[in-house]
Amino acid sequence: MSGVLNILIRCHDQKGLVYEVSKIFLEFGLNVENNREFVDESAGIFFMRSVVSGVCNSKALREALKSVLPKDNFLKVVEPSIKKIVIFATKELHVLADIITRVYEESISAEIVAVISNYRTVEPFVKKFDIPFFYVPVSTLDRSEHEDLISKILDNRSFDYIVLAKYMRIFTPEFVRRYREKIINIHHSFLPAFIGANPYKQAYDRGVKIIGATAHFVNDNLDEGPIIAQDTITVDHTFSWKDMQKAGSDVEKILLSKSLHLVLSDRVFVYGNRCIVFS
Amino acid sequence: MSGVLNILIRCHDQKGLVYEVSKIFLEFGLNVENNREFVDESAGIFFMRSVVSGVCNSKALREALKSVLPKDNFLKVVEPSIKKIVIFATKELHVLADIITRVYEESISAEIVAVISNYRTVEPFVKKFDIPFFYVPVSTLDRSEHEDLISKILDNRSFDYIVLAKYMRIFTPEFVRRYREKIINIHHSFLPAFIGANPYKQAYDRGVKIIGATAHFVNDNLDEGPIIAQDTITVDHTFSWKDMQKAGSDVEKILLSKSLHLVLSDRVFVYGNRCIVFS
Amino acid sequence: MSGVLNILIRCHDQKGLVYEVSKIFLEFGLNVENNREFVDESAGIFFMRSVVSGVCNSKALREALKSVLPKDNFLKVVEPSIKKIVIFATKELHVLADIITRVYEESISAEIVAVISNYRTVEPFVKKFDIPFFYVPVSTLDRSEHEDLISKILDNRSFDYIVLAKYMRIFTPEFVRRYREKIINIHHSFLPAFIGANPYKQAYDRGVKIIGATAHFVNDNLDEGPIIAQDTITVDHTFSWKDMQKAGSDVEKILLSKSLHLVLSDRVFVYGNRCIVFS
Amino acid sequence: MSGVLNILIRCHDQKGLVYEVSKIFLEFGLNVENNREFVDESAGIFFMRSVVSGVCNSKALREALKSVLPKDNFLKVVEPSIKKIVIFATKELHVLADIITRVYEESISAEIVAVISNYRTVEPFVKKFDIPFFYVPVSTLDRSEHEDLISKILDNRSFDYIVLAKYMRIFTPEFVRRYREKIINIHHSFLPAFIGANPYKQAYDRGVKIIGATAHFVNDNLDEGPIIAQDTITVDHTFSWKDMQKAGSDVEKILLSKSLHLVLSDRVFVYGNRCIVFS
Repeated sequence: MSGVLNILIRCHDQKGLVYEVSKIFLEFGLNVENNREFVDESAGIFFMRSVVSGVCNSKALREALKSVLPKDNFLKVVEPSIKKIVIFATKELHVLADIITRVYEESISAEIVAVISNYRTVEPFVKKFDIPFFYVPVSTLDRSEHEDLISKILDNRSFDYIVLAKYMRIFTPEFVRRYREKIINIHHSFLPAFIGANPYKQAYDRGVKIIGATAHFVNDNLDEGPIIAQDTITVDHTFSWKDMQKAGSDVEKILLSKSLHLVLSDRVFVYGNRCIVFS
Repeated sequence: MSGVLNILIRCHDQKGLVYEVSKIFLEFGLNVENNREFVDESAGIFFMRSVVSGVCNSKALREALKSVLPKDNFLKVVEPSIKKIVIFATKELHVLADIITRVYEESISAEIVAVISNYRTVEPFVKKFDIPFFYVPVSTLDRSEHEDLISKILDNRSFDYIVLAKYMRIFTPEFVRRYREKIINIHHSFLPAFIGANPYKQAYDRGVKIIGATAHFVNDNLDEGPIIAQDTITVDHTFSWKDMQKAGSDVEKILLSKSLHLVLSDRVFVYGNRCIVFS
Repeated sequence: MSGVLNILIRCHDQKGLVYEVSKIFLEFGLNVENNREFVDESAGIFFMRSVVSGVCNSKALREALKSVLPKDNFLKVVEPSIKKIVIFATKELHVLADIITRVYEESISAEIVAVISNYRTVEPFVKKFDIPFFYVPVSTLDRSEHEDLISKILDNRSFDYIVLAKYMRIFTPEFVRRYREKIINIHHSFLPAFIGANPYKQAYDRGVKIIGATAHFVNDNLDEGPIIAQDTITVDHTFSWKDMQKAGSDVEKILLSKSLHLVLSDRVFVYGNRCIVFS
Repeated sequence: MSGVLNILIRCHDQKGLVYEVSKIFLEFGLNVENNREFVDESAGIFFMRSVVSGVCNSKALREALKSVLPKDNFLKVVEPSIKKIVIFATKELHVLADIITRVYEESISAEIVAVISNYRTVEPFVKKFDIPFFYVPVSTLDRSEHEDLISKILDNRSFDYIVLAKYMRIFTPEFVRRYREKIINIHHSFLPAFIGANPYKQAYDRGVKIIGATAHFVNDNLDEGPIIAQDTITVDHTFSWKDMQKAGSDVEKILLSKSLHLVLSDRVFVYGNRCIVFS
């Protein structure tokens, strides 16, 4: 390897971990471009993200690091790369279009290998960018049958992450488990407030003065997965729920794009129900 | 009356209301300093707040306005005045101290007629400002017995609003009903997320990336009353729940003081479960 | 006219203006959907924006309004419409792409009649959307000669506004005067801080902890025109100026799109060096 | 030493610094509670802040660290302590009162050894808290003569920092130099916009849509010292400059208190004209 490596470490905390790791970097002649550590005191877990540069045998580096870490560690030694993503959409374009534009201008390092939707609404936009589009209508299918059609598309290509860009359907637990920590969703509320359908309507009915959005990994429980990022904006009594929806759409798109960038650049650890984000 | 009047109107919407009201202001020779209207389209309700100045008979003005408004209207014609408030606290000082300081420097137009607490912690601070302090411990009392002691204090003085400055106890429905739309609370979360006890702990456990606070009127259902104002701040994985609590404390105090100012200056309509705020 | 009208009024303040205007609306049988007024007390100027609906002769309405307003008034009575815009860009895509996407999905009511750039960088993106693209290189031309080429393009089509979507060149005073209150720019700093070239570099050198962007009308003095909207985000010592640029790019695009929407929906009054925005 | 130590390191960057430092912590048997590093790539400077706990000879630790750091290093090995501060005020109370309240409730670890003002306005408030108050009127004195009177007060007590809590006078360069990196000011604008007198008036005249505040160290050039923290809030056309002042006052007080806390807890490095803040 010659260039840059992203190194992610998660293990039980013990004295001297930074010393041991930095010693190995030194022995391998690596420059430490960036170093971030965090200890979750209550759980006794150590997290570290290092960006190192130089020339080295990355397999040997990996083994050296493994040898000094406590058992049951999580270790990732990877070169920054263009990740492959599949995007799911329904009818709304703004979040999807923002990701496509960023991939196009290379401010997000990704290749979009497919866009899958249960409607044809976003198809013309997607096709302008020569991205494969798959229309998988729900019609009279039940959830499993619909997912079977989707799975056929997914099984035929390799990808790193699934991105739900305002995809308005719920997956079965089986589907979610198959892509554990691989599905990123944007929920259009400040979770855990307003879980489920039409959160802007719920927010309006409650008379809130702030609305928000949440980017999170999807797990078994609807809208309860580990949160990557959240943002909020101010509203007032003059906002109908449609006005809230419109105002919130900017937050949704910026937040999902930002969160996707964090995940794709190896900056996010998922641990239990929380994300450690070394932005 | 010679000077300024705040006029608040709420009624069923109908054509020409602004015309009718502004005609009366003109006939009474009043200057309109400020005019704010809002129509809740879905409910068909008209809200108006006007600040007028001049010399007039405010009783006659009131009658003239009444004569042109649809039935079942709400009409308030008041001179801006120093309102009387009773503040409840428990052990935390920051929210209470902020209100006391603002009243002292007259940036909030209020007179604090009593501070009531179930602990003695804030007493020395309160007494520096010559504000009557009442220690009402809970000891072995049940909720009603404790409220009876409090009610004796309240019944002996006149006041416009009760302000809960991080008061950590829940009132009985009877108590709340007695002071309908008169009790203002600060809840240390972004409602409706994290209702109930220790919201910062709940927020930490959920792994949120934003925390908040909510100023609201108190009604029968815990933390479900009409929201006056909300604010949020960003946190990250390095925040323990005590760090969240510390970070949130600034939001709490600014938000309650700001909301109190809005209420005391006749800028807030309560309607159903929402507040119309002409800030 | 049958439908909705946006009515904008600016005139010297005097007693009874709201009465006179609302009387006319009533006489014409119009419903007032929305009413916003503002009096600039120091200058003695009255601003009003009303959205009315119904069936009426809009020319007669205009005359009736003119007859009750003080002299030297500004009055606009218009049906909401799709405005025509010309966009200028240089090499950066994100701001331009955001506007194009919003026009495409009709969240901004505009027709983009031309994109003009001194580089070919954004051309492939623009052409995907069948928008006319004009490449006008500067090469050895001086500013006036370059503007002459641009003016030929502009003179051949009708448009309402020119939008500078990160256009990195400065116009001559003659050009600016020709399109008075018609050119909208996004400047990538919180004006008036960091006027001129490379504001992110300037911000970095000053060691600021917040960066921002400013959408404004262009007038004779560089970056000194009336401000429509501003927004800011937090940075810290880890941000190089390129990191600031990257972080700021989201603010730039959201802010310009939002400001453009406000202008195109007749919500912005320019008055002296300030904007009255009835959002 | 038995307990916690804050360790601050600034030196030229070189390979293996983290290794060398963490090796020493390990050799001294110290627990690393928290570790933050930053490399200013363009200047080639390494910054590190560690919080360690354990039992050790802090003088020996200091020497060990010195022995591995490049020459011309800055090294601070200190136990967290209650710092002494002198506060300067003019007539406004809100910023001063916020600091006093936080010191009172011990959310800021400081002892206020004196409040000095050129007016008597804040004296009654200060005296409630048994804080020495010194009235030093300017009357017919020139700047140096006035500072001589102030210096007499300062020379008679030991203190760590001078805090300007809306102190409206400018010091001579001689005075500033005597307390290099020891004077913290709150300026009521988003610097570098609106340097000098009455920034809210300047902001109003420019028609800005956002106002802000800046906490910074004071150096020779007015309002140009290293920035510790900044914050902003939204305003609109309805704000007179007095409204801006009122709205900004909350930002001012929270920001200065927050910045003071950062400085007093050894989290701020001043380097050139910027602050590295390990919050």
